[in-house]
Amino acid sequence: MVPLGGVGQFGMNTMAVTASDTTLLLDAGAMFPGLDHYGVDLAVPDLSFLEETGRQVSAVVLTHGHEDHIGAVPYVWDRIEGPIYGTPLTLALVASKLDAHGIDCAGRLVTVAPGERVTAGAVEIEFIRVTHSMPDCVAVALHTPAGTIVHTGDFKFDDDPLDGEPLDAPRLAELGNEGVLALFADSTNVARAGHAGSEQDVAGAFEEIFTRTRGKLIVAAFSSSIYRVQMLVSHAVRYGRKVALVGRGMRRTAEIAERLGHLAIPPAARIRDRDVSRYRADEVLCIVTGSQGEPLAALARIAADAHPHVRIDPGDVVVFSARAIPGNQRAIGRLKNDIARRGADIVDDTISPVHVSGHACEEDLKRMLALVRPRCFVPIHGEYRFLARHAQVAGEAMNGQTAVLMVENGDRIGFDGGGGWVQGSVPVGGVLIDNAHSGEVDGAVLRERRQLAAGGVVVLLIPLGAQGAARAGVPAVTTSGFVIDREADALLAEAPALVQRMIDDAPDGERSDHAALRERVRAGMERVFRKRTGRNPLVLPVIVET
Amino acid sequence: MVPLGGVGQFGMNTMAVTASDTTLLLDAGAMFPGLDHYGVDLAVPDLSFLEETGRQVSAVVLTHGHEDHIGAVPYVWDRIEGPIYGTPLTLALVASKLDAHGIDCAGRLVTVAPGERVTAGAVEIEFIRVTHSMPDCVAVALHTPAGTIVHTGDFKFDDDPLDGEPLDAPRLAELGNEGVLALFADSTNVARAGHAGSEQDVAGAFEEIFTRTRGKLIVAAFSSSIYRVQMLVSHAVRYGRKVALVGRGMRRTAEIAERLGHLAIPPAARIRDRDVSRYRADEVLCIVTGSQGEPLAALARIAADAHPHVRIDPGDVVVFSARAIPGNQRAIGRLKNDIARRGADIVDDTISPVHVSGHACEEDLKRMLALVRPRCFVPIHGEYRFLARHAQVAGEAMNGQTAVLMVENGDRIGFDGGGGWVQGSVPVGGVLIDNAHSGEVDGAVLRERRQLAAGGVVVLLIPLGAQGAARAGVPAVTTSGFVIDREADALLAEAPALVQRMIDDAPDGERSDHAALRERVRAGMERVFRKRTGRNPLVLPVIVET
Repeated sequence: MVPLGGVGQFGMNTMAVTASDTTLLLDAGAMFPGLDHYGVDLAVPDLSFLEETGRQVSAVVLTHGHEDHIGAVPYVWDRIEGPIYGTPLTLALVASKLDAHGIDCAGRLVTVAPGERVTAGAVEIEFIRVTHSMPDCVAVALHTPAGTIVHTGDFKFDDDPLDGEPLDAPRLAELGNEGVLALFADSTNVARAGHAGSEQDVAGAFEEIFTRTRGKLIVAAFSSSIYRVQMLVSHAVRYGRKVALVGRGMRRTAEIAERLGHLAIPPAARIRDRDVSRYRADEVLCIVTGSQGEPLAALARIAADAHPHVRIDPGDVVVFSARAIPGNQRAIGRLKNDIARRGADIVDDTISPVHVSGHACEEDLKRMLALVRPRCFVPIHGEYRFLARHAQVAGEAMNGQTAVLMVENGDRIGFDGGGGWVQGSVPVGGVLIDNAHSGEVDGAVLRERRQLAAGGVVVLLIPLGAQGAARAGVPAVTTSGFVIDREADALLAEAPALVQRMIDDAPDGERSDHAALRERVRAGMERVFRKRTGRNPLVLPVIVET
Repeated sequence: MVPLGGVGQFGMNTMAVTASDTTLLLDAGAMFPGLDHYGVDLAVPDLSFLEETGRQVSAVVLTHGHEDHIGAVPYVWDRIEGPIYGTPLTLALVASKLDAHGIDCAGRLVTVAPGERVTAGAVEIEFIRVTHSMPDCVAVALHTPAGTIVHTGDFKFDDDPLDGEPLDAPRLAELGNEGVLALFADSTNVARAGHAGSEQDVAGAFEEIFTRTRGKLIVAAFSSSIYRVQMLVSHAVRYGRKVALVGRGMRRTAEIAERLGHLAIPPAARIRDRDVSRYRADEVLCIVTGSQGEPLAALARIAADAHPHVRIDPGDVVVFSARAIPGNQRAIGRLKNDIARRGADIVDDTISPVHVSGHACEEDLKRMLALVRPRCFVPIHGEYRFLARHAQVAGEAMNGQTAVLMVENGDRIGFDGGGGWVQGSVPVGGVLIDNAHSGEVDGAVLRERRQLAAGGVVVLLIPLGAQGAARAGVPAVTTSGFVIDREADALLAEAPALVQRMIDDAPDGERSDHAALRERVRAGMERVFRKRTGRNPLVLPVIVET
């Protein structure tokens, strides 16, 4: 097995499983680099290691429908030859995603139910119900010739889930009794003591909010938090509010969840966002996208008074019913300021328990270990410090009865009946996807953007005679995003002479090699800028044949 | 009074106070935009409103020595005619800063003690001891013809401060009894219920850490947290560890604090960082800079094994004894991963109370209001949502006996005996300072850098004949940080023809106006890029006279 993402980072959760000549992907997740990040929208795992053997992926097994587990499917589609297995909700979300990419998935998506098994090469894959922050999630047990390997996916123990479908602990215990070779388990919340809460815990906090709110109630949540949406809808019915789903993602996910029976909104309780203004403020609940401060999402537009249908007025209450993903805090802060300016009250999980995490905390992780009692344990899903902490927790909890294996993305983990170990590694990484279109951003482009962002660009025009030798005539200088103070101004004035000297100093052969000449001038002038101005603009020499 | 910074934002705390023909600055703070922010290191308040009247600043009054209260002094130095008032520690930190900028402050820094008064024009300024996260902090009472205005600076009620100098609540109560026209108070922690802790609370958490740590103990803190440093030194002496201060800022601030008697490190307990490796791990405490994940600070270099003298080994304990400033979470996360990789234990304030805030919480803020009982209250120091919350807290606490005035940076607040109100506004903003040198980054440069960061740059060469008309010859294209996929490639190939058409379409007069021509091509081509590729590179046309 080779983790291709999610091990040593949050997101892009993807594991390659190879048994004899069959390679599966266990999840195919994307990662979001956060707002304002050099025009990169998305990272997906690099599958180039498959090229070593010329192999394709013969099946994809998905644990649940979150972006960090399914978001890469459209981008790795061309490498997949066989079926995509998942529960109905997971596959409905994948289908919608493939559709948006114009990919025809006819017949390739194969629905499985918890308890079922499918076979791919020498591996039998068993799906086991787990609870998480959305319905229809599974862990998988890979029954391999070397033994059984359990991969938890994302999970928590919610003993009282809103859909009445608890985690299948009996089956995990049974596997534990039969003997499990290895356990791969989610490390996201290992740094939190105790137990993850139940979705039911949030219901109480919202009762208080529904009771006291006199204005509109606007709740921002992830559209995939279908339990949360259902709970809000039920409260709205009880407290006499109509429900408007605001934001395309919210409506699209709700539509899928309703179709599959995971969400029920009584028609009489539902209104369109364009009709919100026709109701009294205390008759409306808006469930909106944009809890992370995304500038184009519904909540940001509402807060900026730029939404066509919904506005915030004094007395309204805006609830952030989601955690703030690290890196988004500033954007969320700006959004909250905009909301406060409109006179609304803001509630988040620092004020009231309006959110519970979907990931197991320390005591839950110990419970999972105690159920499965693996011979070998591999912490996954998290940055290095979380994996290290999970390894420590497992070591203490299992009293040395379980071997702990710390791995990172790209490590090739081999198993035999006795246990697992790292056998070298394969090249991995994130393939960066540019906004709007499907272009890949390679490392060089990203480095250039970083330099441009911090220092701007200086374009140097270099007129070269037809003979390839520098001709009389000054290189013109054009800058953008570059700060011109006294020192920089003097340097720009000298630039033509400096460039001329660099060209004169070039070996004879280089003067007719424009690429080499450009590189010489770039490196030389960037050095001069750093030394004399302390700044590091990107220098872009442009040779003009005259 | 006009807030020039810090009201509607965190940082850059600066207030202009004008009485008849005298203008003072109350603090002159800087703001740090966070890591990786378009090469901008620092923002300082814009004082251009002074130009309206041709006035200079006749005095600066400083409440304490934090960067967000003194960091702008070197940058506004030229606008200051009179003295800079502050306590000894505050002024020693300012002197060190001015010195680093090569500014001779001879005789301009005037030391005051709590309880003292100085006069500037029609205003008498009284300094009142407050407690905060560093020693020698004051609030000020401005005794003006219209009445007394109290400005808290940054404060908390630490009834048991390490230096035995509590907040002068009796004097504030006295002022309250005499009648206070207006109170301006710190809103930083208004969203936290209860009371801010005492520095003494942290001592207990560290006792447990000193007791159980078998390896090196490395504590990251702000160098200005002198109480924290003193407490750590005292613990080290008690637990038999030598103290190394690692990081230039840490050593420089400690040197100033020692000179002024705020810090005592027994010579026998102190070692140089280069000697750390000569001691057993359990004999060493390193107090280091870099708690915010700054890549060049001591802790980041130690964690990357790139520090010349200090390394992290398995069994060491690294403590983050500072809060994570919003926006720095990702950098701090990366740093913690590096530390975990070296096998050290990490402790932060989510695990153990190794940090207390220096700012008053909700109940403390009510206590301040109850002491001062102002006729008018103005919340300051915080983003809008915190100011709004503080206004709400004050309204409820004072039962409508105090008028609450919500203002933002630039609002001109007028007072007479009856109260205060906003009388128009002046232009304000942050002057952005480029790294390394003192260059100012204007808004246009920042906008260009944002565009460069997200989309890269496309340079278009436009050869123009001597007559000003476009000549035959193709504009060459050079890109950097730009993603070239199929669509973009096709567009770049067409670019020469598109540019030629734009030039042909230009009105006659424009063809000889190179600036207008460049702007026409830039706007036109950026539109084409957006439409056809969904991307927004910065287009930089360069005209070559041929």
